[in-house]
Amino acid sequence: MKKIIALLPGDGIGEEVIQSAKQVLQTVAKQFGHSFVFPSYDIGGVAIDRHNTPLPEETIAECKGSDAVLLGAVGGPKWDQNPSHLRPEKGLLGIRKQLGLFANLRPVKGFPELLHASPLKEEVVKGSDLLIVRELTGGLYFGTPSERRDGGRSVVDTLSYERYEIERIVDKAFQSAKLRRNHLTSVDKANVLESSKLWREIVDKKAAEYPEVTVEHQLVDAAAMKLITNPTAFDVIVTENMFGDILSDEASVLTGSLGMLPSASLREDGLGLYEPVHGSAPDIAGKGVANPLATILSSALMLRHSFGLEEEALAVEEAVRVVIEQGYHTADLSISNGFIVNTTEMTSHIIEQL
Amino acid sequence: MKKIIALLPGDGIGEEVIQSAKQVLQTVAKQFGHSFVFPSYDIGGVAIDRHNTPLPEETIAECKGSDAVLLGAVGGPKWDQNPSHLRPEKGLLGIRKQLGLFANLRPVKGFPELLHASPLKEEVVKGSDLLIVRELTGGLYFGTPSERRDGGRSVVDTLSYERYEIERIVDKAFQSAKLRRNHLTSVDKANVLESSKLWREIVDKKAAEYPEVTVEHQLVDAAAMKLITNPTAFDVIVTENMFGDILSDEASVLTGSLGMLPSASLREDGLGLYEPVHGSAPDIAGKGVANPLATILSSALMLRHSFGLEEEALAVEEAVRVVIEQGYHTADLSISNGFIVNTTEMTSHIIEQL
Ligand SMILES: CC(C)[C@H](C(=O)O)[C@@H](O)C(=O)O
Ligand SMILES: CC(C)[C@H](C(=O)O)[C@@H](O)C(=O)O
Repeated sequence: MKKIIALLPGDGIGEEVIQSAKQVLQTVAKQFGHSFVFPSYDIGGVAIDRHNTPLPEETIAECKGSDAVLLGAVGGPKWDQNPSHLRPEKGLLGIRKQLGLFANLRPVKGFPELLHASPLKEEVVKGSDLLIVRELTGGLYFGTPSERRDGGRSVVDTLSYERYEIERIVDKAFQSAKLRRNHLTSVDKANVLESSKLWREIVDKKAAEYPEVTVEHQLVDAAAMKLITNPTAFDVIVTENMFGDILSDEASVLTGSLGMLPSASLREDGLGLYEPVHGSAPDIAGKGVANPLATILSSALMLRHSFGLEEEALAVEEAVRVVIEQGYHTADLSISNGFIVNTTEMTSHIIEQL
Repeated sequence: MKKIIALLPGDGIGEEVIQSAKQVLQTVAKQFGHSFVFPSYDIGGVAIDRHNTPLPEETIAECKGSDAVLLGAVGGPKWDQNPSHLRPEKGLLGIRKQLGLFANLRPVKGFPELLHASPLKEEVVKGSDLLIVRELTGGLYFGTPSERRDGGRSVVDTLSYERYEIERIVDKAFQSAKLRRNHLTSVDKANVLESSKLWREIVDKKAAEYPEVTVEHQLVDAAAMKLITNPTAFDVIVTENMFGDILSDEASVLTGSLGMLPSASLREDGLGLYEPVHGSAPDIAGKGVANPLATILSSALMLRHSFGLEEEALAVEEAVRVVIEQGYHTADLSISNGFIVNTTEMTSHIIEQL
């Protein structure tokens, strides 16, 4: 299989973790007889510095022409005071919208060796394994008007959805549930929002096409509670963009493995952008100690979702599992009787396992 | 002091917990030489059954004429399938809006005897004591348009704020911080929403008037994480209506004392509506076993915020603390070597302590 994988290292530790994932993907390619090429483009803060925009036209065009995109992280104190169109995260929002990546998949699953770092009691969090399917290109993020009025005496943002936007993300969630434990929790605020009422109707209608999946509706405030009190009750959660932003970050800290979590942002034809859930960690950037595993696991999601290479994806995931089981970890994690390694060493351990 | 306290028992266990709080308030009145009267009105499901509306005109008018309102809870399976204008929670939303109760105060503080019931590890949650100040009459909850378009092919809700609405809630939050540990976390999504940018500007401006208060801005997704990983880092949190709905429910499960949490919804002149954070618990309604302490603690907030009776408020809070310390608890809680009591017995214990 021949694939073009566009790399968008971005800022902070982005470059380091992307290099690591690239080496892992090169190993996979060699072993399974594929050919991957890895052109690299600017996004975020580095793009602001070099091109005076967080999302250069070239980056958009080249990503559109690639088979998948692997992103590191964007942002850092250097650009925190910039005006809003020159903020690194505008690059991230822009590339999602430009590529039409409407489905954000965020699996949350603990590693037994890392569960001790969870803020939750082990008996509460043990066994939790959930997937948040977040709508990524609609809602409050892109709705118009989004503006001040009367010279700043009032302000509006708009939560808007087209019916087909809700239908396609809900469908993606049902499909995901079918591949997992056949349970779907749709999260909304139907007691307040008209958009949530429509969302609920569409979920109920779509449910008829997936009789094997049990469906539950939950209000977003109740879901925010239940994620903490009973995380194992969830299989797949589907929700709109802003609720998904909040709930997926909430969920990401449950298992004590924030530095390990991958994400995928997809559109219907398989093109996807893959990135770790963690940020650009400017405090440790350039020191060679960053944890590359979330990015490596993101590249496994790429193999699976964009290229349909399930065996290869599993091989990468298994390598990560084994290396953690052996006790190797970067300095952000702790494993009792484990060994602290740097980014390069961690990458070598993964490659060795492959 | 002569006060009219409008009681809105509502549904489920509402009647039981309101009766309990009323007895406590009567005891306070006798002891401290006040005169409270307690007219009672319908809201929620019972109001739908009796008047075919969740918020009868009489209820609105009488609450407007009272000095404070004490609410039990609304809702239950009986009305779950009703069309949206005949849903119990519309009564709650309506009374907040009609009375102009823009400031929702939700203190979250654990009881040492109950911390063991927290889903969080004791070392994470111990010592947490925070107050969420939620804007309650604006934002996505009441913004227009909120409607379907093109025959249901699209839908919009509107997040709208007037500048003065943001200013007054932010001011309330600064005032609250001054009475506590002088730290304010303002939560927004300023990297995406125009309303959040205005919110942030207003907070920064207001900060000049409160030099003793340290101010921090946090994105809502980061706040949702930090509430779990480091709840003791917060003192006062201020945020808009929907973010506040989600974060306050999230915060409510941290200390293992959901059945103990009070809330106050205020406007500038001191009129307030007080209610427990928990719901109507239809499964145990009418059995006499409901936990009245959240409602009793809500009435303490009433004494403090609406009547300025700090000493009386502290007396009630202290009575609750002592009774829990003695090991008395209703069936929803557990205390090692404690004693299970019913609603009436719990009420008597509190009254005895007073
Ligand atoms: C950086 C920010 C705009 C972004 C979002 O809110 O979507 C981030 O929080 C995320 O979840 O990927
Ligand atoms: C019942 C519902 C409309 C209400 C809200 O969202 O405000 C509730 O969740 C609350 O927080 O009091």
